[in-house]
Amino acid sequence: MNRNETCDNIIKIGTSLISRQGFNATGLDAVLKEAGVPKGSFYYYFKSKEEFGLAVIDHFAERYDQRLNTFLDDEEVTPLNRIRNLLESSLARLEQNHCSKGCLIGNLGQELADQNERFRTRIEEIFASWRERYAACLREAQKDGSLDPELDAAVIAGFILSGWEGAILRAKVMKSPEPLRDFIETLFATVLRKNR
Amino acid sequence: MNRNETCDNIIKIGTSLISRQGFNATGLDAVLKEAGVPKGSFYYYFKSKEEFGLAVIDHFAERYDQRLNTFLDDEEVTPLNRIRNLLESSLARLEQNHCSKGCLIGNLGQELADQNERFRTRIEEIFASWRERYAACLREAQKDGSLDPELDAAVIAGFILSGWEGAILRAKVMKSPEPLRDFIETLFATVLRKNR
Repeated sequence: MNRNETCDNIIKIGTSLISRQGFNATGLDAVLKEAGVPKGSFYYYFKSKEEFGLAVIDHFAERYDQRLNTFLDDEEVTPLNRIRNLLESSLARLEQNHCSKGCLIGNLGQELADQNERFRTRIEEIFASWRERYAACLREAQKDGSLDPELDAAVIAGFILSGWEGAILRAKVMKSPEPLRDFIETLFATVLRKNR
Repeated sequence: MNRNETCDNIIKIGTSLISRQGFNATGLDAVLKEAGVPKGSFYYYFKSKEEFGLAVIDHFAERYDQRLNTFLDDEEVTPLNRIRNLLESSLARLEQNHCSKGCLIGNLGQELADQNERFRTRIEEIFASWRERYAACLREAQKDGSLDPELDAAVIAGFILSGWEGAILRAKVMKSPEPLRDFIETLFATVLRKNR
């Protein structure tokens, strides 16, 4: 592997370990051992464990943005169904993982928001960008008449983000997709119903 | 302090440290030092760190049940307003804490659901009991005509629990009560609105 491939591989392995164990409990030794990289050469790739953690977050956020593009920019589908398809697809992925791991950004927000201001602000930015993606889609639904124009799209978008992150947490605790399924059904039967 | 007082004090200090740092990152040394208890005598009170963690969870759940009784059994108030008062009171407490710490049960569910089956099942039980308390209140609202009888009270109760846990996470990340405020307003303006 060349330098970039090695770096990508360290990040990929780090993402998997941090998703399972959290940031503080993930030792660099374990990451480098799994990546087959000599321990001493870590600092060739990252200045510190903190920089490594931030790179893992950025990598995850970039990949997640691609998922958001796939679903939320899909003009073949109505705006509300774009959100529904995204949530259904996330549910299927979580179910494949037996409802373990959860959402990396939610996990790290939970673990690090009170401990590290750089992590906290980066995670806040990512949540805000996700909320804005939902909000833009909701505004399109308001324009085409499929969603009540009196609703505040940004507030509803935040409500969806909160509910989804909480449903992921409950699914992880219950080891069941039931909270995710219930969240989607209830959201579309109540908050996002056309004629509320 | 007698034995029980010392034990209660260790649990109280443990609750505070675990709320801030998580379970794995909380060392027994730090807990015992703050409690002024000699290190060697910990095992006089608890069999293991795991037993200590479970005692912290049980202590928290007992106190939270008292809060649920205070608000959800308050017959001076309509059933839906009991839920609203509970959420408003929780919002005020989180705001007092500058939106740090979050919910101990949510935090530990996040951290430990994939790591420790005893913690996972205990946390699952506690979430289920909270959901049932909400559901009972929603059923009362359905009986007195203030909530659509076609809604599935258990599903809506889970939706509220998910949304609230997610809003606490987002408030912790944003260091702002905005997600909690938005959650309460949106919940009562949409899902729990009388004439949806």
